[in-house]
Amino acid sequence: MPRFTPTERTTLHRRPQRGSYDRAVVAAILDEAFFCHVGFTVDGQPYVIPTIHARVGDHVYLHGSAASRMLRSVREGIPVCVTVTILDGIVLARSAFKHSLNYRSVVILGTATEVRDRAEKNDALKAIVEHVAPQRWDDVRWPNEQELKATSVLRLPLEEVSAKIRTGPPLDLEEDSQATCWAGELPLRLVPQPPIADPKLDATTPLPSYIREYRRP
Amino acid sequence: MPRFTPTERTTLHRRPQRGSYDRAVVAAILDEAFFCHVGFTVDGQPYVIPTIHARVGDHVYLHGSAASRMLRSVREGIPVCVTVTILDGIVLARSAFKHSLNYRSVVILGTATEVRDRAEKNDALKAIVEHVAPQRWDDVRWPNEQELKATSVLRLPLEEVSAKIRTGPPLDLEEDSQATCWAGELPLRLVPQPPIADPKLDATTPLPSYIREYRRP
Repeated sequence: MPRFTPTERTTLHRRPQRGSYDRAVVAAILDEAFFCHVGFTVDGQPYVIPTIHARVGDHVYLHGSAASRMLRSVREGIPVCVTVTILDGIVLARSAFKHSLNYRSVVILGTATEVRDRAEKNDALKAIVEHVAPQRWDDVRWPNEQELKATSVLRLPLEEVSAKIRTGPPLDLEEDSQATCWAGELPLRLVPQPPIADPKLDATTPLPSYIREYRRP
Repeated sequence: MPRFTPTERTTLHRRPQRGSYDRAVVAAILDEAFFCHVGFTVDGQPYVIPTIHARVGDHVYLHGSAASRMLRSVREGIPVCVTVTILDGIVLARSAFKHSLNYRSVVILGTATEVRDRAEKNDALKAIVEHVAPQRWDDVRWPNEQELKATSVLRLPLEEVSAKIRTGPPLDLEEDSQATCWAGELPLRLVPQPPIADPKLDATTPLPSYIREYRRP
């Protein structure tokens, strides 16, 4: 199935032309975004917490301390919303009203399940490390039993999902076309800066190419 | 009052040393972040939606189409959570378990109120434009009555608020100190790229210095 089926809850009513239910579009946004925001409700109060995610096929994995409020709440099987947003630029229009941001976002609704299978849990943690730093897993010490026990991993199926994307120039009203101010886009990109070695690192340790040439998928 | 008073809901139980209730710290994070994620609950389902915010003193303003689900829901006076997160870098540890991100985040809990006063609404929209593009307001056409009517503005007080910040190198276990892999931080920064003029723009229109030299506060 190349597309998600829109539900009443994921149908975009505002600017539907910016919406997408294409699985490849959704996957690319989830894979490029470093982290997500997880929404969950406790005692009627919504909480929105940033955390790292990783997509594996038609699922998204989240992880955290087994003791954290987010993990303790979400693994109970309550409804969650996982949203990722990539900022692509500022849209400078001729009217205040038409200013905007260019962005790509994905909203996932559903219920997360705790991963208890040891192999799947290990694979999910590998996916999370590789999501942030591709090729890193093979260079580091893998989780031991104690660390696996201290970490909760949650799996959320990609079923009720929508993407929303804004690209391109400002969409000014015809009546503003004669305005004299500059108008256009200021693209923004998250750019790696020079790496900073751990002060405890042996100075002869080489910087791996996946850090020196770091880039998102 | 230089600090927010932690409540049961904003007290950081996990890694409290990373928390802050300092008003200046919170204000700086809110002002630097381009956008926030708004969490609200409808029929038991949490939704997390990215949107632009602006801080004015001890309040945060949000805006959107008067017809949007988010605005229609939130202005009913339901509990919301507004979270901003600035990603500062990747933390590459010697063990998979100790990998992390450096970040600065703020979580605001509360109830938003719709702004009906015309002057406050106009000032909030000015603050939102200036939040994204400082010095822009004076160059553009201001909202007319129809645009003001089509836009809802919400005000959320900064009362129940916490910040969380991670900085610095990986915190590896002593037992991993002899690992041979590289370890450290890869800082990330959101960097403006060359501006793209609107295709409809008169080519002689000068690029303003606040775009050419764009930087966050």
